[in-house]
Amino acid sequence: MGWLDSIKWDRDGLVPVIAQEAGSRDVLMFAFMNRTALQETARRGEAVYWSRSRGRLWHKGEESGHVQKVHEIRLDCDNDVVLLSVTQQGHDPSIACHTGRHSCFFQRLEDGSWKTVEPVLKDPAEIYK
Amino acid sequence: MGWLDSIKWDRDGLVPVIAQEAGSRDVLMFAFMNRTALQETARRGEAVYWSRSRGRLWHKGEESGHVQKVHEIRLDCDNDVVLLSVTQQGHDPSIACHTGRHSCFFQRLEDGSWKTVEPVLKDPAEIYK
Repeated sequence: MGWLDSIKWDRDGLVPVIAQEAGSRDVLMFAFMNRTALQETARRGEAVYWSRSRGRLWHKGEESGHVQKVHEIRLDCDNDVVLLSVTQQGHDPSIACHTGRHSCFFQRLEDGSWKTVEPVLKDPAEIYK
Repeated sequence: MGWLDSIKWDRDGLVPVIAQEAGSRDVLMFAFMNRTALQETARRGEAVYWSRSRGRLWHKGEESGHVQKVHEIRLDCDNDVVLLSVTQQGHDPSIACHTGRHSCFFQRLEDGSWKTVEPVLKDPAEIYK
């Protein structure tokens, strides 16, 4: 597992991860992985993150069904950020965000305030029931 | 500056920032901003980061000339990650990485090891002279 040793884990043993949709090339979300999460992501071919709020591994889609199939894992020049190319599964159009939106980056700065610019595609109460 | 107060700054007063190229939609780099950096980014329309290694504001391109023109600033669902849509200026094809490559994410996991899959477009010794 030498490729895992190449990574510069932060003081909490985590690495930041960007998930980008392969087809649309939209940036869907940002999360963290620890060593086990990244190893599991590579092994399964599906994104497994470290949930800092829950303090445990989080197989994305385990509750929502919105699994991320992983096509490619990239590492940056400083060996401390990971970029995933994914297919966001489980809903069409795809939903990566826990708010039921396509992408987590749905707030845009306009004239000095944050405007929500993407619709809710599915009610979170329906996603997490 | 209420929009800056909406952001959940981390324990170091920083927010992680993803820079995505507007035209190609490639993810170019990942860095951090503090409050002043984000305010300056919005004011100038050019990316200003917080350099953790140098402990100071870093107007991207100040040495290399590889300035990032900022088209859009987005914020995620948790108000703790920023996504920039940028035009990477100063070289054609564009160079965002200090190694002289297009993107910082030039290492791809292949068969259990990291392979460099993007060429150096300009010698860093020529960029930072």
